[in-house]
Amino acid sequence: MLKINADRLLNDLKQLRSFGAASPGVVRLALSPIDMESRRWLADRMSDAGLDAVVDGVGTVFGRSRKSGAALLIGSHTDTQPTGGWLDGAMGVIYGLEIARALAESKETSHLAVDVASWSDEEGTFAGFLGSRSFIGEPVNETIARARNREGQWLKDALETAGLTGAPRVRLERGRHVAYMEPHIEQGGRLEATGKSIGVVTAIVGIRELRVRFTGQRNHAGTTPMSIRRDAGAALVGFIARMNEAFQQLVASDTVWTVGRIDLDPGSLSVVPGQADMYLQFRDANAARLLAMEQKLAELVRDFNSEGGVGAALATLHEPEEPVTMDKALQEHLANASEAAAPGQWVRMPSGASHDAQLIARHIPACMLFVPSIGGVSHDFIEDTAEEHIVLGCQVAATAAVAILQEMTARRS
Amino acid sequence: MLKINADRLLNDLKQLRSFGAASPGVVRLALSPIDMESRRWLADRMSDAGLDAVVDGVGTVFGRSRKSGAALLIGSHTDTQPTGGWLDGAMGVIYGLEIARALAESKETSHLAVDVASWSDEEGTFAGFLGSRSFIGEPVNETIARARNREGQWLKDALETAGLTGAPRVRLERGRHVAYMEPHIEQGGRLEATGKSIGVVTAIVGIRELRVRFTGQRNHAGTTPMSIRRDAGAALVGFIARMNEAFQQLVASDTVWTVGRIDLDPGSLSVVPGQADMYLQFRDANAARLLAMEQKLAELVRDFNSEGGVGAALATLHEPEEPVTMDKALQEHLANASEAAAPGQWVRMPSGASHDAQLIARHIPACMLFVPSIGGVSHDFIEDTAEEHIVLGCQVAATAAVAILQEMTARRS
Repeated sequence: MLKINADRLLNDLKQLRSFGAASPGVVRLALSPIDMESRRWLADRMSDAGLDAVVDGVGTVFGRSRKSGAALLIGSHTDTQPTGGWLDGAMGVIYGLEIARALAESKETSHLAVDVASWSDEEGTFAGFLGSRSFIGEPVNETIARARNREGQWLKDALETAGLTGAPRVRLERGRHVAYMEPHIEQGGRLEATGKSIGVVTAIVGIRELRVRFTGQRNHAGTTPMSIRRDAGAALVGFIARMNEAFQQLVASDTVWTVGRIDLDPGSLSVVPGQADMYLQFRDANAARLLAMEQKLAELVRDFNSEGGVGAALATLHEPEEPVTMDKALQEHLANASEAAAPGQWVRMPSGASHDAQLIARHIPACMLFVPSIGGVSHDFIEDTAEEHIVLGCQVAATAAVAILQEMTARRS
Repeated sequence: MLKINADRLLNDLKQLRSFGAASPGVVRLALSPIDMESRRWLADRMSDAGLDAVVDGVGTVFGRSRKSGAALLIGSHTDTQPTGGWLDGAMGVIYGLEIARALAESKETSHLAVDVASWSDEEGTFAGFLGSRSFIGEPVNETIARARNREGQWLKDALETAGLTGAPRVRLERGRHVAYMEPHIEQGGRLEATGKSIGVVTAIVGIRELRVRFTGQRNHAGTTPMSIRRDAGAALVGFIARMNEAFQQLVASDTVWTVGRIDLDPGSLSVVPGQADMYLQFRDANAARLLAMEQKLAELVRDFNSEGGVGAALATLHEPEEPVTMDKALQEHLANASEAAAPGQWVRMPSGASHDAQLIARHIPACMLFVPSIGGVSHDFIEDTAEEHIVLGCQVAATAAVAILQEMTARRS
């Protein structure tokens, strides 16, 4: 079993935490001065580990092993949300760095190639998944020309300020990059609630985001009898109850759906709402179930409209994101490594959040593993994971990495 | 039967409409330059009608009859909402003016006294019901010192600009003012829906305004399983359903309740709401019923909290407004006049909206009559009433005014 250096791992994570520290959290928005500082630090650490390191033309930090043959790519992201936790994606990147170092230190594994990536702007400060999109060959020039952050800064200007204009962009190397592994914190409370230490990800869920707009009649809330009202807000509330009931018949235990926003118009206590909007998101690892939920919603809207009174209209808020299954063979490697390091203390589970892995999985086999988030907290300064879980996760990832590379190498020879 | 002059009535209403015209509506915010211009025009019309007219120290236009003895006070308001209808309160004021003129023109009624008022700032541009509050002797100096409009203008500055600082304030004259009548548009759709032409108001409803705040746990909408969520928004939706069911057991056909505003926090599609506020208003003409609804709501909140999970907290948004019963004898006069002018075409009904009458009714017998609002529309530029209904309402008010004054005069002699 490949032996990782827990102290070195934790020490690097703590050093990275100092860039943009907002104790106990971190603010490291993609391509900001402090983010670029941390990227140069990370590239130096990769170089120290014997990797050929660059910050590429979109901001991705990429450490390429000098070993030839099949390479396992390990990565995640070191940029954060405006109120970022210290681990989030940073943990997975430092796992990759530590595994590359540990592989080099052991005679039995020093021939194995691990490339390490910190993808640019995973969190969407300018354009979500910019680094991994560029890596898999999506045309990102238009995105770079048009994207801005919340302060109105153009992405192309941010890249220029960062000194990256014209720098080469790292690309997926077919033949070399045989698999991708992304370790990450769970960002939810499932592992903690079930007392498990490792999650082997089965799939990254697909997402639908829709709006249902109810159109009734705005009226005086004092002079309009209940019997002649066309209250869009009351219609919305009734519709949600129906929807919840209908979804209960369709969903699995992992399905989630959320009404995150409700707008009543005009939003005054003295006025019967004439318009009401509900914003709905649902996620599931099963594409057929997402489709069934979408169809059910459309059916509920049709039924609602056939009753007269208040009208309802369904609108798609953005392109559907389809679920992405993690590679079965890679899952098995992670499962075996988990069982070896923490017998009975791991579980298979979907990822409810989006990750760079869902893009890279379109091109090469990909897998993810999770460690528990304390209190299920994520995207918050107080996000944290127990040190023993951080170390355990890296050990599992390292063990699996060796097994994956040995299998890949054996298959080729 | 006292004969009113329909052409003169409609002509005055149309002239008043030209002040602040925003065709087909009117913008005449209390104490604005155009409102003051209309007030001076109104005072001139009152003088022409033989009344002693003033614009008083708070902006109320008051036309006092030169006849001695018991006087009937007829009034309403000529200020408007930011998107005002042309009739609203203006109609009742011009009814008063026309009735004063009609009384003076007939030998049998020329001894009867009608005073006419257009109360200042009924709509609450600075401070709702300012004119009628001042008239009944409420201490309004503090209000004048502290009230501002939406643009931040101080009420005291607006009064100064209007040239009213230091002007005398008209007061209720006990002994003289024996009754108050306020004609008004219905502002709802009940008369139209039932094909009636006149509403005799039984009471002005009381109002409660409350907020229920739900406190759960803000969480990632992708990574937090439904089973461990504490979704404040979902709790709010479920609570409204329970509340509606419970209220159905308590209410009468005239009771109204409205959830006019809902705020989910943080209001993002990707975040399970950690806090959710619902703003509730309910109105009823029966004080006991309002109390029962308030108690039921508190009970529902207690029950909800006993279930654990998401917490609920009830907050009162402002002082309760209790219902005000219209004087029974005055109602009878209006009913008799309605039956005479429009047999079978009138109905008794509560006023769901607030009116100056609810303040004046604390001191002298008061009554109100309604004419139909087309489409039930109010506080909107397109508010309107059929001309035949405008004229009919004035005829009913005039007939009732004579009967009321004859009875009052007979009682005294």
